[in-house]
Amino acid sequence: MDARRAVEGLKELAELTGGPEGARRVAWTDEWTKAREWFRGKLEEVDGITEIETDEAGNVWATAPGDSERAVVLGGHIDSVPNGGWLDGALNVVGALEVMRALAPQKRPVTLRLVDWADEEGARFGRSLFGSGSAAGALKPDDVRNLKDKDGVALPDALREHGVDLDRANEAGKQLENAVAYLELHIEQGPVLERMDLPLGVVLGTFGVERHAVRFTGQHAHSGSTPMDVRRDAFIAAARSAIAFRDDAAARDDVRATTGFVNVSPAIVTAFNGWCETSLDQRALDPDVLADMLRKAKEASENVAQEEGVSVEWERLWQIEPIPFDDHLIELADEAVNEVAGVSHRLPSGPLHDAAEMARLMPTVMIFVKSLRGLSHTKDEDTPEEDIELSVRALHRLTEKTMEKLVS
Amino acid sequence: MDARRAVEGLKELAELTGGPEGARRVAWTDEWTKAREWFRGKLEEVDGITEIETDEAGNVWATAPGDSERAVVLGGHIDSVPNGGWLDGALNVVGALEVMRALAPQKRPVTLRLVDWADEEGARFGRSLFGSGSAAGALKPDDVRNLKDKDGVALPDALREHGVDLDRANEAGKQLENAVAYLELHIEQGPVLERMDLPLGVVLGTFGVERHAVRFTGQHAHSGSTPMDVRRDAFIAAARSAIAFRDDAAARDDVRATTGFVNVSPAIVTAFNGWCETSLDQRALDPDVLADMLRKAKEASENVAQEEGVSVEWERLWQIEPIPFDDHLIELADEAVNEVAGVSHRLPSGPLHDAAEMARLMPTVMIFVKSLRGLSHTKDEDTPEEDIELSVRALHRLTEKTMEKLVS
Repeated sequence: MDARRAVEGLKELAELTGGPEGARRVAWTDEWTKAREWFRGKLEEVDGITEIETDEAGNVWATAPGDSERAVVLGGHIDSVPNGGWLDGALNVVGALEVMRALAPQKRPVTLRLVDWADEEGARFGRSLFGSGSAAGALKPDDVRNLKDKDGVALPDALREHGVDLDRANEAGKQLENAVAYLELHIEQGPVLERMDLPLGVVLGTFGVERHAVRFTGQHAHSGSTPMDVRRDAFIAAARSAIAFRDDAAARDDVRATTGFVNVSPAIVTAFNGWCETSLDQRALDPDVLADMLRKAKEASENVAQEEGVSVEWERLWQIEPIPFDDHLIELADEAVNEVAGVSHRLPSGPLHDAAEMARLMPTVMIFVKSLRGLSHTKDEDTPEEDIELSVRALHRLTEKTMEKLVS
Repeated sequence: MDARRAVEGLKELAELTGGPEGARRVAWTDEWTKAREWFRGKLEEVDGITEIETDEAGNVWATAPGDSERAVVLGGHIDSVPNGGWLDGALNVVGALEVMRALAPQKRPVTLRLVDWADEEGARFGRSLFGSGSAAGALKPDDVRNLKDKDGVALPDALREHGVDLDRANEAGKQLENAVAYLELHIEQGPVLERMDLPLGVVLGTFGVERHAVRFTGQHAHSGSTPMDVRRDAFIAAARSAIAFRDDAAARDDVRATTGFVNVSPAIVTAFNGWCETSLDQRALDPDVLADMLRKAKEASENVAQEEGVSVEWERLWQIEPIPFDDHLIELADEAVNEVAGVSHRLPSGPLHDAAEMARLMPTVMIFVKSLRGLSHTKDEDTPEEDIELSVRALHRLTEKTMEKLVS
């Protein structure tokens, strides 16, 4: 296979739909359509691909039939965030294209399919995983019917302009009827592989998330006239709690705890704060670990609140369960990465991916390739070209191994 | 003396220039003028007061001559904040009025004077201690010439409407030529006396203040993809530092350290913060202690910053040195309070007072009377009437003792 061709393809796409301000392939826009037309042209060149179709959710499917209808699916998304990078998620589909180019012409025991999911990023309407979620049945039309973009355009109208009837989007699920495995390549979007000086890693699954607002209420008073020992300082309670949340996460492997927004009142130099709210975003791959982190965080905040003479309230803002990938496919991906790069590493994914929607339905795994400086969703997103080539070769090996496993 | 009359006077004044929304005697307004006319009427009733005059800074002076021109000055301010309480600082002047009523008719070795300082609160133009600062020479016309109120009225114009020429305000200093002691009664505006179940206290001086913005800079990144051990989280560094500042102050007696404003960036749920700024307001009565607190705080923030992989910068926002009151007068005030209330307590003042301007020039002391719930600058400010009476009697005894001391 010619992995170098993937790098050239990505550069060609970046030239077509990117530039000094970054990628502009936002889903449900003309630039996205342009990118998909370019990609369809590439697919049409591939010997062995007999059908290219767009499903009811706007996902594009290319099929290379094998001896069986059972299908291994290689997936990705050509859409980007505004001013995005050249690799997220174009690498996924352009890499998969090269795998198809190598494997589609061959006689194969199973069918190979490539899917370009519609609107992974949710950049225009704020709801990510539209295409994969619709196919998986996780996204219901009524969940998104009222979404509008910043210009007030309703999501159903924008979809209709691109040939998609929102109320029929879940019919895309029939594309998955014969799918038996889902494989996806992606940039890491984090610093782990770079720090370990590794080009590639195998993804264990996507983190579950517990996201809360944590609100402390004491009583503000004058900074000069109020002795330290009678204060009911809500910010100090929040600060101590935030450190407890952080320290608990830092003591475990592969979990996260993040304080994001921080608001205080009255927020003036001459008073301590009687009110403080912070956001806490906790992530873990193991649901029991995640539940335990949340329990410990609540307990820590309540102990701190009592010591500081304030009250604390928690409000859940969002949650999603951890989505672990398939153990057998993780093994195969590990073998593939080892064969290509000589060394592998297993890591969870912080961000969500289309693969998370597929993992609910079938054996799924992802391969990550190193991101420089952990950057993504910016035009400064980058990965060394030689590592991009390795990643495409690893996806090729993984696809071969997955097909072999399915017939053995 | 009739201390009860002070309570009645305060109620009368509250009825005249207050109401359900609180006091409205904001300096350089008609309500303030009305309050001062009422007060002048009271002064005119007092046997022994031979002169009532307004100086170049708008301060009102009432003089009861004694055998010597050396004068003991009783001071206060009848102006209030908008929606203020009935006691801050009307208690000071109405209490002093009753002391004058008791002592002015008597033959005395020294002169007694009462001053109603103009614009202690600075509520309209944002600069407090106008009258006392002008008399003391600490406030220069050019410092305040460009101040405007919220309606855009310039301070010099508002002063002119009240008969004050800003450029001559410092000439008020000649009123202090023969002054040999300054005594002031005030509500505590804090919770210390109430918590100790004491009606009265003797003030050791006004706190020095070191006020800084403390800014931490790290690098924000995604809450999911960034492991805990590689984060450069500016908010966590600020939180740890704020706790160190607080803990250091809480470990000492009679000092303060307060985090006021807290700003973070990017302040979103899905990223930790790469930037955080907080305000730190430190207060102490001993300049060496204050300097030590600042040194330790800087050191603590630098250690934390290093541990968290961020940088820290300090910017001074404001400072004022501690202003200790006179040791001998503190002793006399302690005696007076003990005689009147059976028990005394010495405490520093968190807020500034006109007395701080006088303490730079002559022996000065203040007496505090308990504030309920530590409240001030609100219509809910209050003090039990029996404690108000005690406080006026203590000011009376202190005035007698000060005169005795001066001739001994």
